Amino acid sequence: MLIPVILSGGAGTRLWPVSRSAYPKPFMRMGDGETLLYKTLDRALAVADDGHVLTVTGRDYYFLTRDEYATHPRANLDRLPFLLEPAGRNTAPAILLAALHAHAHISADAVLLVLPADHLIRDLDAFAADVVRARALAQDGWLATFGIVPSHAETGFGYIRMADAIAGRDGRQIDAFVEKPRREVAEGYVASGDYVWNSGMFCFRADALIAAAQAACPDVLAAARACHDAATSHESPVEYAREAFLTQPDISIDYAVMERAARRAVVAAGFDWSDIGSWKAISDLEAESDEHGNRVRGHAILIESENCYIQSDKRMVAAVGVRDLVIVDTDDAVLVADRERAQQVKLVVDRLRADKHDAAAFHQTVHRPWGSFTVLEDAADCKVKRLVVKPGHVLSLQLHHRRSEHWTVVKGTAKVRVGDDEKFLHANQSTYIPMNTLHRLENPTTEDIHLIEVQCGEYFGEDDIVRLEDRYGRK
Amino acid sequence: MLIPVILSGGAGTRLWPVSRSAYPKPFMRMGDGETLLYKTLDRALAVADDGHVLTVTGRDYYFLTRDEYATHPRANLDRLPFLLEPAGRNTAPAILLAALHAHAHISADAVLLVLPADHLIRDLDAFAADVVRARALAQDGWLATFGIVPSHAETGFGYIRMADAIAGRDGRQIDAFVEKPRREVAEGYVASGDYVWNSGMFCFRADALIAAAQAACPDVLAAARACHDAATSHESPVEYAREAFLTQPDISIDYAVMERAARRAVVAAGFDWSDIGSWKAISDLEAESDEHGNRVRGHAILIESENCYIQSDKRMVAAVGVRDLVIVDTDDAVLVADRERAQQVKLVVDRLRADKHDAAAFHQTVHRPWGSFTVLEDAADCKVKRLVVKPGHVLSLQLHHRRSEHWTVVKGTAKVRVGDDEKFLHANQSTYIPMNTLHRLENPTTEDIHLIEVQCGEYFGEDDIVRLEDRYGRK
Repeated sequence: MLIPVILSGGAGTRLWPVSRSAYPKPFMRMGDGETLLYKTLDRALAVADDGHVLTVTGRDYYFLTRDEYATHPRANLDRLPFLLEPAGRNTAPAILLAALHAHAHISADAVLLVLPADHLIRDLDAFAADVVRARALAQDGWLATFGIVPSHAETGFGYIRMADAIAGRDGRQIDAFVEKPRREVAEGYVASGDYVWNSGMFCFRADALIAAAQAACPDVLAAARACHDAATSHESPVEYAREAFLTQPDISIDYAVMERAARRAVVAAGFDWSDIGSWKAISDLEAESDEHGNRVRGHAILIESENCYIQSDKRMVAAVGVRDLVIVDTDDAVLVADRERAQQVKLVVDRLRADKHDAAAFHQTVHRPWGSFTVLEDAADCKVKRLVVKPGHVLSLQLHHRRSEHWTVVKGTAKVRVGDDEKFLHANQSTYIPMNTLHRLENPTTEDIHLIEVQCGEYFGEDDIVRLEDRYGRK
Repeated sequence: MLIPVILSGGAGTRLWPVSRSAYPKPFMRMGDGETLLYKTLDRALAVADDGHVLTVTGRDYYFLTRDEYATHPRANLDRLPFLLEPAGRNTAPAILLAALHAHAHISADAVLLVLPADHLIRDLDAFAADVVRARALAQDGWLATFGIVPSHAETGFGYIRMADAIAGRDGRQIDAFVEKPRREVAEGYVASGDYVWNSGMFCFRADALIAAAQAACPDVLAAARACHDAATSHESPVEYAREAFLTQPDISIDYAVMERAARRAVVAAGFDWSDIGSWKAISDLEAESDEHGNRVRGHAILIESENCYIQSDKRMVAAVGVRDLVIVDTDDAVLVADRERAQQVKLVVDRLRADKHDAAAFHQTVHRPWGSFTVLEDAADCKVKRLVVKPGHVLSLQLHHRRSEHWTVVKGTAKVRVGDDEKFLHANQSTYIPMNTLHRLENPTTEDIHLIEVQCGEYFGEDDIVRLEDRYGRK
């Protein structure tokens, strides 16, 4: 039984300002309007035996991920179990927990197909064909990886040195995993034909991985098993105790298992692949360019400019006499980078983090289990937000000590509790919530509510929310 | 009697996106927080004989200009008459109307000092000394200009070829005005020592200018005189009939009068001068740079970048691996330009105008006689604005056919009329204005009111305002 395992999360550093830790790369929308996460689920469902797909992600991404999955026409949420990490960890803990869970609670014969949620693959037929090849190897007990045939001497990836072909199967044994090489070394690898890029995608039987881990890294496996055993329930979403989870070492599956395992194999991928590792990679994906090599998503005016990539959802970007730039505009931040040095954007995020600047982690639009809010104004005397509440959702019963709120519904119908009063507010109706007054906002309808909230007071921090009841466990 | 004449206005093209036609260059704030207009008034008041300063500007800039003047501690608004142009025209009409007005209504002996409001001069002592020299020439009947000793072979300015020194005065006769030269020609001019830049600043007796115009361009003078005579009143603000005003030709004072006048003189300026003609010029004015030559006003993070100028009031700008760029961020538009090609930003404005894009003329913050509003959200289902109403001001008595409004006062106390009701709204109070209901907002206090307006409906254009009474003549 083939069970895709989607690994989703990320620090949000390489594609800042669109990707941020509260809303990282898997949630980025590509030019066709689909997120990388949606595309990953789509290719997982295309090869899953019976619609079962396991997802390992952070607690904070659970609702966001479920909502994204729910938009897929072939997704059956009952067959999409989640394993929720209380903190970001490396791939060895994530994949071992998935193997332990799948083996114990889904199928003792589970064959796992590990798919990072931030890769882009466009040729799904070729992908499915390669999965068939990898699965055959996995069923024979091999730990199979997908190797990408290098298109150039990339220095940003690890490589796999391939050894002999495996008799009767369409794959080769692995001689060694090698670190990111210097350019001259990479050129030699590419010329030799014996090296492929390490994609981070794997296929193996859950029991074979567990056995290999027992041999290669018994401590890591023991820590994963202890964490697995300490979960209060194995119903989805599975939540792990923070302490038990953090006892696991921060180590990759490559380093913990693959580099030391006996039976490991590589399938040279016949599909296109991008790990969308930088803005340059995003830019290269855009098919359409003008006669000067400029690519634009959104609003831009270019004057005598060449080979630029511009992305802007809302505002007008004007480029005059420039070349080889990536310009990415968001509500609260804009990036201007040389195409070839776009990886260094992570240094910007480092600086923002050091300065404790909100733009390191958060967007102006913040996602919540019940929907989202967008900050329209953040001033000394007021804060103005647009709230979107999804059908059937409800915010916590709450009060604020340091602000009052004025709500105006601009779309849909809200059920509002203020103090002991409960009433319906339709579009173009408003209400007032005095300081220290219990209130709750609910969407009992089947359409989104849009609401403008004007906060008055002297302090508007998210920490001035006293929650008395919360459907999403945030009390 | 020396009367400075401030010429203020502009198309707002060369310093877009900060300068726009609804809020052009004179209103731009420099690094010290002062606008160019304020600085111009400041140097005018420093040399005016009795505080009289005449301002020629567009009708649309009247309230904005008055408000700006009112912030100057030495300004006496009763001595700051305005001549309001119903449309943008060239310098000959503006200066001739000023001469006719000053001569007839202020002083028959008026000596005019013409000061464009978009120049920057920092050495006010040297400026005042040069005004003394120019004034002496003017009193002898010369039409004097201020020539700027060239610091380099600029091709963006016109030049003045100087002739013999004027006996007994500190100035030289003018041999010729020459057009913007090619680089090699400009280099020759600079090397010769006989050329200065034409600054567009002048000093002459009003009657001498009128006489020179009568000789050089009688038609232009006749048109100006007809326009002057047709003004309904000569009390400030003087308004000219549109038709009479537009009968005047679109011609510069240089071309109409100076190039053909008999007695014209030049004073080689001893002061520093910039016409702030491009973002490069703004950048060069910033004193402080980091060790890589980067200059920043506002919020920016620079990674391995050199010789960039970044200006951003609100949002975070990150520059990675770039050099020689000007990056200017505003609420609704961002400019990224090569420093040396920053003049071409006017091509961006041309494009925006062709597309009828709001960002050609307007900012997110729009100034009104009573204060200003800032658009916080402009969506299909609502528009949200922050309004600031100045002390003692009042919006028109108005109604809307296609929207209702929800007002929440967040600072100050407003007097509000809704239908036949009138009441005071304090901070943290709100009111509702149904569609088709007469309403009026007034600030009877001595402090600004800040108010959040949520508009509900399906159309939010500024043209859906039916004004029944308006203090500012906008009915």
